[in-house]
Amino acid sequence: MNNELSSQQLKDIGEQGLLEILQRFCPPEIIGDDAAVFQTAPGQSLVVTTDVLVDGVHFSNLTTSPEDAGWRSAAANLSDLAAMGASPLGITVGLGLPGEIEVSWVERLYQGITECLQKYNTPIVGGDIVRSPVTTLAITAFGQVNPSQIIRRSAAVPGDAIIVTGVHGASHAGLELLLHPELGQNLQEVEKMALIRAHQHPQPRLDVLPILWKILATPCPMPIAGMDSSDGLADAIIQICRASSVGAVLQRRQISLPAAFDHWLTQEQALKYALYGGEDFELVLCLPQESASALVQHLGQGAAIVGKITAGSTVLLHDEQKKFPDQVLSLSQGFQHFDQ
Amino acid sequence: MNNELSSQQLKDIGEQGLLEILQRFCPPEIIGDDAAVFQTAPGQSLVVTTDVLVDGVHFSNLTTSPEDAGWRSAAANLSDLAAMGASPLGITVGLGLPGEIEVSWVERLYQGITECLQKYNTPIVGGDIVRSPVTTLAITAFGQVNPSQIIRRSAAVPGDAIIVTGVHGASHAGLELLLHPELGQNLQEVEKMALIRAHQHPQPRLDVLPILWKILATPCPMPIAGMDSSDGLADAIIQICRASSVGAVLQRRQISLPAAFDHWLTQEQALKYALYGGEDFELVLCLPQESASALVQHLGQGAAIVGKITAGSTVLLHDEQKKFPDQVLSLSQGFQHFDQ
Repeated sequence: MNNELSSQQLKDIGEQGLLEILQRFCPPEIIGDDAAVFQTAPGQSLVVTTDVLVDGVHFSNLTTSPEDAGWRSAAANLSDLAAMGASPLGITVGLGLPGEIEVSWVERLYQGITECLQKYNTPIVGGDIVRSPVTTLAITAFGQVNPSQIIRRSAAVPGDAIIVTGVHGASHAGLELLLHPELGQNLQEVEKMALIRAHQHPQPRLDVLPILWKILATPCPMPIAGMDSSDGLADAIIQICRASSVGAVLQRRQISLPAAFDHWLTQEQALKYALYGGEDFELVLCLPQESASALVQHLGQGAAIVGKITAGSTVLLHDEQKKFPDQVLSLSQGFQHFDQ
Repeated sequence: MNNELSSQQLKDIGEQGLLEILQRFCPPEIIGDDAAVFQTAPGQSLVVTTDVLVDGVHFSNLTTSPEDAGWRSAAANLSDLAAMGASPLGITVGLGLPGEIEVSWVERLYQGITECLQKYNTPIVGGDIVRSPVTTLAITAFGQVNPSQIIRRSAAVPGDAIIVTGVHGASHAGLELLLHPELGQNLQEVEKMALIRAHQHPQPRLDVLPILWKILATPCPMPIAGMDSSDGLADAIIQICRASSVGAVLQRRQISLPAAFDHWLTQEQALKYALYGGEDFELVLCLPQESASALVQHLGQGAAIVGKITAGSTVLLHDEQKKFPDQVLSLSQGFQHFDQ
């Protein structure tokens, strides 16, 4: 054990630092993506992902109803499965609850979880309920995927087109409107509601998978690269580039945005929301140009080719109209913008 | 929603009451056992189980080292898989941690988890680390089983012999010795250490499964009944009887106990430890007499036939020597004994 590390506290090294230390306890070949994958039988891989959510850290009665907290936590886990190309089989729900919590709060949480799950024919298959001084929700989702159809962060190659399956920035805009309603003065009511709904009821893009498999042959002739944009579009592209040892050029004006942004935010603000806002739960996929065009055409509204994978390691934000200089994207930028 | 219920708090109805309310959100055919089961492919079922453990509720630095907390939490989940007849595939570990926790504490927890897992060739395949005001550990384990070999609580039939795979009461005795070292005055050091070790390093009985499959034909000709004794031997037998709509007669003098109990506890105390102590993580199986005898013979030390499944619904504790009157076992009795 490294003694220098051992005397440190978690706050000194952060969750990411701790994660790196703990990864040596895990087999490297089955972790490091949106979810873990391992083959259980010929032609079948099991995909597993887990999330822990804590009251006051990840949700709060001030901004989130229990139904919405439930929906969002289920959606985030289903999105991780979609990001691996997997169809959901079920989820387990572990709950730590204070004795003073109202039973109706827990029922409403479950209502939200099951409403989201039912949309994707996914059952709750088990769980655990224990006492805890702080409300805690631990969800584990698992699904299955044909091994040739696993979507991995590490499979992007130079020349691939980068596709987003929908608009980015809506969820963060919705959160801002919930926290600061006065920001919405220039928005129509219907626009406000749509943005808030994007935050409260994100849709995991499991619907993209059958379309993707239809466009690509089965068994899929090449590895598919991608992940979801739960931590922001910039994060998704940077993570894919790191895992694949490639770079990317992102076309500033190709990134699809909610229509309301046009008359509500400056171009710079809109782009920040889209790149660093997070929680849009779209898929970011890297495919050969022809397949990419076919997929975008099939998906329609919001789907777009936003850039290209390049050799090297730099992720550049580029303006075709040359009004803005090229900008290097980095993960830390996201945290500077929103101080999350 | 039932409005009368909804105004109640969790402490009014307890975890069991809440569990009953929430089960209506879950498909009844895949829950209600030690773990959830569902078929993923012909000849293959996936088994999933999840546990949430909270600092100060389920473990404490006062009585448990982080290594032991890790070992015990992994062992409890592997035992749930064994109780379904399933071989482990992997576990996920979700952690909620305060910023002030020492990194070395978390490393030692993982050390304990992986030491237990390595014994059973089981990898950690994923996880999540988040901030939380209270240290929380959420483990989900999954395994696979041939559908004909699933062990279910609901499969016991009158005439079955009830088998325990080892002694009961050791884990509770170990806990008592940790909490009140003065109780161990009449024990040899080696006896004390063995009881404490039974508490700190329980062994999930995955080793029983290949022996069981060897004795029974494959595919198994009849459903196998059983569960683990994590909540006590009395609880296991009562749960099996409830789920199978049968009763049982338990032979007081057949229940195998740690040898040290002979010269340390009264007969009554020893029996209470065995029936209600919990956390021995043995398997309690119900099989036709012939298979039961063969299994007990193969398992050796501590394994025993302790009773018989009967028609009706009563679970009786019987003394062949008639020194004690027959006694009806109930779940609530366990809680009276130990006020857990």
